[in-house]
Amino acid sequence: MNKKLEELKTRLMEIGDLNGAGGVLAWDQSTYMPQGGGPARGRQMATLAMLAQEKQVDPAIGKLLDDLRSYEESLPFEDDDASLIRVARRDYERSTRLPPEFVARLNAHSSETYMLWAEARPANDFKKVLPNLEKTLDLSREMANYFPGYEHIADPLIDFADYGMKAASVRKLFADLRAAQVPIVQAITSQAPADDSCLRKHFPDAEQMAFCEEVVRAIGYDFQRGRIDKTHHPFTAGFSVGDVRITTRVREDYLGECLFSNIHEAGHALYEQGVDAKYDGLPLQGGTSAGVHESQSRLWENIVGRSRGFWEFFYPKLQKAFPDQLKGVSLEAFYRAINKVERSLIRTDADEVTYNLHVMLRFEFELAMLEGSLAVRDLPEAWRERFKADLGIVPPDDKDGCMQDVHWFGGVIGGVFQGYTLGNVIGAQFYATALKAHPGIPGEIRQGKFEALHGWLIENVYRHGRKFTAPELVQRVTSSDVTIEPYIQYLRTKYGELYKL
Amino acid sequence: MNKKLEELKTRLMEIGDLNGAGGVLAWDQSTYMPQGGGPARGRQMATLAMLAQEKQVDPAIGKLLDDLRSYEESLPFEDDDASLIRVARRDYERSTRLPPEFVARLNAHSSETYMLWAEARPANDFKKVLPNLEKTLDLSREMANYFPGYEHIADPLIDFADYGMKAASVRKLFADLRAAQVPIVQAITSQAPADDSCLRKHFPDAEQMAFCEEVVRAIGYDFQRGRIDKTHHPFTAGFSVGDVRITTRVREDYLGECLFSNIHEAGHALYEQGVDAKYDGLPLQGGTSAGVHESQSRLWENIVGRSRGFWEFFYPKLQKAFPDQLKGVSLEAFYRAINKVERSLIRTDADEVTYNLHVMLRFEFELAMLEGSLAVRDLPEAWRERFKADLGIVPPDDKDGCMQDVHWFGGVIGGVFQGYTLGNVIGAQFYATALKAHPGIPGEIRQGKFEALHGWLIENVYRHGRKFTAPELVQRVTSSDVTIEPYIQYLRTKYGELYKL
Repeated sequence: MNKKLEELKTRLMEIGDLNGAGGVLAWDQSTYMPQGGGPARGRQMATLAMLAQEKQVDPAIGKLLDDLRSYEESLPFEDDDASLIRVARRDYERSTRLPPEFVARLNAHSSETYMLWAEARPANDFKKVLPNLEKTLDLSREMANYFPGYEHIADPLIDFADYGMKAASVRKLFADLRAAQVPIVQAITSQAPADDSCLRKHFPDAEQMAFCEEVVRAIGYDFQRGRIDKTHHPFTAGFSVGDVRITTRVREDYLGECLFSNIHEAGHALYEQGVDAKYDGLPLQGGTSAGVHESQSRLWENIVGRSRGFWEFFYPKLQKAFPDQLKGVSLEAFYRAINKVERSLIRTDADEVTYNLHVMLRFEFELAMLEGSLAVRDLPEAWRERFKADLGIVPPDDKDGCMQDVHWFGGVIGGVFQGYTLGNVIGAQFYATALKAHPGIPGEIRQGKFEALHGWLIENVYRHGRKFTAPELVQRVTSSDVTIEPYIQYLRTKYGELYKL
Repeated sequence: MNKKLEELKTRLMEIGDLNGAGGVLAWDQSTYMPQGGGPARGRQMATLAMLAQEKQVDPAIGKLLDDLRSYEESLPFEDDDASLIRVARRDYERSTRLPPEFVARLNAHSSETYMLWAEARPANDFKKVLPNLEKTLDLSREMANYFPGYEHIADPLIDFADYGMKAASVRKLFADLRAAQVPIVQAITSQAPADDSCLRKHFPDAEQMAFCEEVVRAIGYDFQRGRIDKTHHPFTAGFSVGDVRITTRVREDYLGECLFSNIHEAGHALYEQGVDAKYDGLPLQGGTSAGVHESQSRLWENIVGRSRGFWEFFYPKLQKAFPDQLKGVSLEAFYRAINKVERSLIRTDADEVTYNLHVMLRFEFELAMLEGSLAVRDLPEAWRERFKADLGIVPPDDKDGCMQDVHWFGGVIGGVFQGYTLGNVIGAQFYATALKAHPGIPGEIRQGKFEALHGWLIENVYRHGRKFTAPELVQRVTSSDVTIEPYIQYLRTKYGELYKL
């Protein structure tokens, strides 16, 4: 039996190595590759992806997984070998369900649609992409139908990013969350807006980078196993447990950009750096779902990084780094500036309180389009209506309305947005649970110490990698299903105090 | 027939993409990879190399090459398709000759020997690596014997780097070269040493990098298709015709390091950037041999970059970059400093005149060991004797004697050194031929213009990539075999004037 397991591991590690190599090529493309490298790089990445896919669907893997089933069943659910076999089987079954012909057709359509969108968005021309987007919806339904037996047609699509979450339960969760959040947003935005002018001075690039490096090092990001580089869009890229890099961007006229994108990406990276090193190169490496991944970026960025306690420690250091810019700006003024809430058009620029409203309307529209209750051609109008209802403003155009995100225009419709809000919700659940185990965490944070929180997250969340699905992990860690209560509690406490609600 | 050719190209390009991807991973490992990435990176690179090798020896390629033989024979020798098939066949036949079992055995032995050497060299302990090095010699002979029918046992090994060059003819060439060079070295080193103190002041890193970038840009290095980064050992890495990077190192206490290593690597890179873009990803991409590659680094570094005319243009700019350090240092004094000749122990630090003596003794020892006329255990003593005869000094130890280069300790004995000196020889041949076609080249260089030389090299050498072997290319370009006359002529003219010989 051990020999079969070793053969399975060898095969899986080859796939892992090809994907890791592809990750390095993609990182290089975004950071240091000269412009002329573009065409060959696209080809090289496609070749690695194709070889990884070929190996992923090799029937020899299916055979090994069958042969190993009795061994797996003889082991406890949490056993490393059992978990490896279980997760590898899930990956194998998902990969082999999609006919290569369909994958090729979808990829070709996605590329074409992406290029159309890149032209149509600046021109605010929804009609130009409408036929393609309608076909994307057809293909998304076709994709879902390769996984028969679902409760909701979105379920198989949600499974790609957030395995085990169901459209029905997420919809219910989001309905409750919306009901709680819309009044909070209304109560805050009916007041005079917070003053964030202290963040909008001239902050030189090098000093921002130096300060951010100090912050992410303090929260536990390991520079022996990572580094920070600059890219157009910040991201985290893990090539192995020993090499998890983050990228950032700097705006010299806005301090919030580099600072919070660094803490956000460092949160993602802490997760991947914290995975048990013995899973390296195997399917158990990496984060278990989009939602759990986002729970870590959001927990560190918002719950920790935008807390008053955090800045009790770091604000004097920040003032030292920018003495002229922050002279006479009190800690309280700074704290209010970094937690400014406002009605805005763009999801990626949204603050912590309004952000979920941006996400949830997209999720609802995905379900409605897949169900057939919303026609693609009616999306712009539906967007304006729902936006007004939830955020109190009406997008003046489609380019900053339903065309703002690349997701639907470069992939499928369904399963691509829920992770952002699930992240906020799950992050708050984990943090509340950590606080119960270690009530001293807020006190430590006020002293710039993060070992108790970081250690608890490694022990309970990070080290497991992909061993547990998100629902399994949340249940195991919090003894509860995914629930919005801790998140709502967190928002009410923090913003109730800030805005005297 | 076209369909078979397309299938061949598809297969070859997959191999090219895997090798290109491996190149990116290796570059990243030397430049930006955090320390913790090491173990997984080694595994990822090994996986890519193994997959490339598997695809390289796939009998389907042999079948396609057979099927395409009559098509190839119907075309002129220089035709792109004919050349692609010819070079692909050569690669295929070389790859399939070596049993995978042997390759694995050699790799395991090389890794072990490299690690031993890394410990033994600082300890000056030749005996520690002797048994391994003896086995390396056995394996080198075994490797050669997978290519029966050779004239000299070193020929198959030489073919790996300098295909088509023969031990007998290289030995003859080197004997003549040695006979001409030893007296030049003796005549120069019997005089008072040149004063290079002007290069040994404090030159800040950033200013050196800025100046070097200006120089390599001027000679034609295309930053849209390349970049410069810092590494421990400088190298050139081409991942495609559109992405050929160089690396450098800076010594703030010695101006010569960064400057000439940049021009040297830029020479390699001009070659690979100059290959016809339609060969990208296919076996015709890249340089045709170690010797021709080195001819370009040496031509640009020495014949151009250490010429008086070159510095007539650049020295005023250099003085502007380092006004304090170079105040009162005349162009003539600087020119003499960068062309200082001295007897030294280390090949990689050697000047233009003594360098070949370092290389040629290694080549002779390789042949002697392979022939059995020199036992590995007698290498240290033989090294000391020959070093004294050629360079007039005796190495005080083995660590800076026969143990100084990694080549034999991380690979095979045979075929690994001749390219360095062939490069000097071929570079002078090419340059002399270019001068005949464009007598205005020296005048252009004095004005900081390099278009005529660079253009001639692209047209006659670079664009062909691997289409012609080194002997074919030299014959085609210079209407002559590889010959030392232009090189000796160059040395005598330049150093005769400098040292009044």
